[in-house]
Amino acid sequence: MGLHNPPEVPMELHRQNRTNLVNAMRRHLQSEGLPVNGVVLLQGGEEQTRYCTDHAILFRQESYFAYLFGVREPGFFGAIDISTEKAFLFSPRLSEEYAIWLGTIPSLSYLKEKYEVDEIYYTDQMESILRSLAIGNENVLLYLLHGLNTDSNKFSQPATFEGLKTFNTNLEILHPILTECRVIKSDLELNLLRYVSEVSSAAHVEVMRRTRVEMKEYQLESMFLNYTYMYGGCRHCSYTCICATGENSSVLHYGHAAAPNDRTLKDGDMALLDMGAEYHFYGSDITCSFPVNGKFTNDQKMVYNAVLSAHKAVISAMKPGVSWVDMHKLAEKVILESLKDANILLGAVEQMMEKRLGAVFMPHGLGHFLGLDTHDPGGYLEGLERPKEPGLRSLRTVRVLREGMVITVEPGCYFIGATLIPAMENSDTSCFINKQAISTFQDFGGVRIESDVIVTGDGCENLTNCPRETWEIEAVMNGEPWPLKR
Amino acid sequence: MGLHNPPEVPMELHRQNRTNLVNAMRRHLQSEGLPVNGVVLLQGGEEQTRYCTDHAILFRQESYFAYLFGVREPGFFGAIDISTEKAFLFSPRLSEEYAIWLGTIPSLSYLKEKYEVDEIYYTDQMESILRSLAIGNENVLLYLLHGLNTDSNKFSQPATFEGLKTFNTNLEILHPILTECRVIKSDLELNLLRYVSEVSSAAHVEVMRRTRVEMKEYQLESMFLNYTYMYGGCRHCSYTCICATGENSSVLHYGHAAAPNDRTLKDGDMALLDMGAEYHFYGSDITCSFPVNGKFTNDQKMVYNAVLSAHKAVISAMKPGVSWVDMHKLAEKVILESLKDANILLGAVEQMMEKRLGAVFMPHGLGHFLGLDTHDPGGYLEGLERPKEPGLRSLRTVRVLREGMVITVEPGCYFIGATLIPAMENSDTSCFINKQAISTFQDFGGVRIESDVIVTGDGCENLTNCPRETWEIEAVMNGEPWPLKR
Repeated sequence: MGLHNPPEVPMELHRQNRTNLVNAMRRHLQSEGLPVNGVVLLQGGEEQTRYCTDHAILFRQESYFAYLFGVREPGFFGAIDISTEKAFLFSPRLSEEYAIWLGTIPSLSYLKEKYEVDEIYYTDQMESILRSLAIGNENVLLYLLHGLNTDSNKFSQPATFEGLKTFNTNLEILHPILTECRVIKSDLELNLLRYVSEVSSAAHVEVMRRTRVEMKEYQLESMFLNYTYMYGGCRHCSYTCICATGENSSVLHYGHAAAPNDRTLKDGDMALLDMGAEYHFYGSDITCSFPVNGKFTNDQKMVYNAVLSAHKAVISAMKPGVSWVDMHKLAEKVILESLKDANILLGAVEQMMEKRLGAVFMPHGLGHFLGLDTHDPGGYLEGLERPKEPGLRSLRTVRVLREGMVITVEPGCYFIGATLIPAMENSDTSCFINKQAISTFQDFGGVRIESDVIVTGDGCENLTNCPRETWEIEAVMNGEPWPLKR
Repeated sequence: MGLHNPPEVPMELHRQNRTNLVNAMRRHLQSEGLPVNGVVLLQGGEEQTRYCTDHAILFRQESYFAYLFGVREPGFFGAIDISTEKAFLFSPRLSEEYAIWLGTIPSLSYLKEKYEVDEIYYTDQMESILRSLAIGNENVLLYLLHGLNTDSNKFSQPATFEGLKTFNTNLEILHPILTECRVIKSDLELNLLRYVSEVSSAAHVEVMRRTRVEMKEYQLESMFLNYTYMYGGCRHCSYTCICATGENSSVLHYGHAAAPNDRTLKDGDMALLDMGAEYHFYGSDITCSFPVNGKFTNDQKMVYNAVLSAHKAVISAMKPGVSWVDMHKLAEKVILESLKDANILLGAVEQMMEKRLGAVFMPHGLGHFLGLDTHDPGGYLEGLERPKEPGLRSLRTVRVLREGMVITVEPGCYFIGATLIPAMENSDTSCFINKQAISTFQDFGGVRIESDVIVTGDGCENLTNCPRETWEIEAVMNGEPWPLKR
């Protein structure tokens, strides 16, 4: 079992993120003819307890705050002065009891050094410090974070504190600019994404190799969690592990409390494992699909290779300037062609595309931005509209690719009653479906293959390193080392 | 590595819990001369997302709701008609999209059978169903849950729904009665507590055996989590693992985000591991302390045996009718005596007790109720007041023991600057402290030994099965099987 070396995280990463923001804010203010000053103010997350109890839920910093300041503890505020680029942190003042129950109270100078900010104070000093940043007699303008997350349809909560109402505030400008900064990753951010993808890939290989018929799905989850924490230092996952086998593999977001990875693996099942670790806030999101007994049947190989072909076609085509909607359609087309070759679908693929038949087999979008959140924000730049058609409307971004974007490529092919039965009953689409041939796949579930990909200057770089070809998977499950020796 | 058999959970457990509540409510209403009818209404927990994102936090049911209904999914309401003892569940109505993304939509009849309630409806039918429970022309009286959690100082949130205002409601009666039901465990509850304690004990043994100098604290956490999930089917822990080594072992609630189990184990360190798994909502809470290199020094043995003597003395004395405050003082006394025997303390133990010197070395309470919450509620029955003295004021209960209570026994002895320095500066207590002798222990950290104990008819039963004697720990760390062969 390979050991990884959890890297030290340079706080330079967050300093660069702040510089990116300040530069973007200045450009915007200049272009609008507005005064190039004011203060960006963000509130970090607070520790939560479970319902009315004192059960503390393990704290994970809010992602916008983490992006700018890298602070791992709850209860902080952070500010950046646009005219000087100075960064301020405001720490909660901890009680004497804290030292007994929760640990040494860090001094302000310790925190200043740890997070490499210019100045640090207690939160109860914030109002006066912010006021002191006034230029001349003017009141200080605070830029607060308020905007829509297009995946959750929720709004971020702007910072709030006693005395806020005596400041001028702007809720419009910061969110789109800061979100856009997060879309394009720096080299230091890419290093973390590379590391967490390396650990998560190796964990997938470990799970694949140790999977056995008669195990429980949650045992695969447990092996993944243990590998990434024990050997990778990853305490958090990017999201709840999806460990779906048999017919469960057609449930796109399986694994939550109402579908808790508790089925027993049966001989002949496919497994679809969608699992990714997180390291210093940056995440990974990887899916491997394989037969739980280690040997593909012909049907499994056919569906798997349909998805793998789509995965390869997209990665071959990705580069700056390419539209993500076109990539989604490319993946659909390759999958439909494969299903036609297998005699499951009948007729012209072009007509299937027109009738949106692809969405029956892949109801989710091809992929999404990845970073501090699994569904990293910025998918719908202002002015871009969500498509209305089935499949396309599930896209978490419709943008044109740019260098430095990190996006998941995750085509899938599922046999889902909830989409297949309506398609077979609809006169527009029923003609394409070979009902006899498809009936064999009723309990098949589905296949997804998901990699994390950086858009580079002239193409892309796949961060994920898992066995993908059917023979690679069979060899690894048979005990061969990964990567395979020639 | 031993395999455990995650047991099927009988829904009879929750039916019995409901019967207990109904009987207690009827007794109370009768004794107050109130009409013996009305409806208990509870609202289950909702799934939460992280800040403004669509990152779903793994759902864990609210504990009062779990106690009465055992429901694992979010979004439910539950009701019990006091006059008929009929139990009702109200399920959220799930959208068609749910079937594609989150899984098969369970039918009402499936849920009724799964949770063994008398009737089940959708939440949007709740108002009319509740209204139909009226007796004659009277309006229905709803008993809602509202009361103080004495560990968090927070109030439980009463159920709320559209149309609630048209019902009569009572916020006073339900909370104390339902809380008191939770204090005394049934045999079916004890079976679950036995199982989760067995798994957690075995996991502690596994971690102890695999601990090595140069590991990271979080690797011990990862081994525990993996053992309890992989081999015990425990997806949740009762609380964030405390994996404290060296001087960190004097931080009582180490392990949270600001002190995240990230120290490297050094030769000569003591480890203090406070970790417990949860199974079907019922938890365990176990602490083991041991030298990370597998061999106690004389100093380590002295402190360890001081705590172990206290642990044994309390368990020997526990039975119905005994006051928990007396047990706390007994533990303090045994520890102070041991420190005096070791020449760290000077003078009469009785006088030390008067000056509350015990709280310098054990600032926390001796133990707390355990059940669906780690700090299970009911520690301060109405009328009981929290003591004011150091140490005693940290007690999570001051009650007299009764058969069926489950309580942790967790004496500890810590060398904490934040309590020791004031005690050495205070003229009341400085006379007892041998400053030269104690200076050796400055970086020692601390020792805690914690077991989960049932109060039985004539004594108690310790559910925890870990090596406790120093020679047992050394043997197990040296590879001997547990329990030791003679």
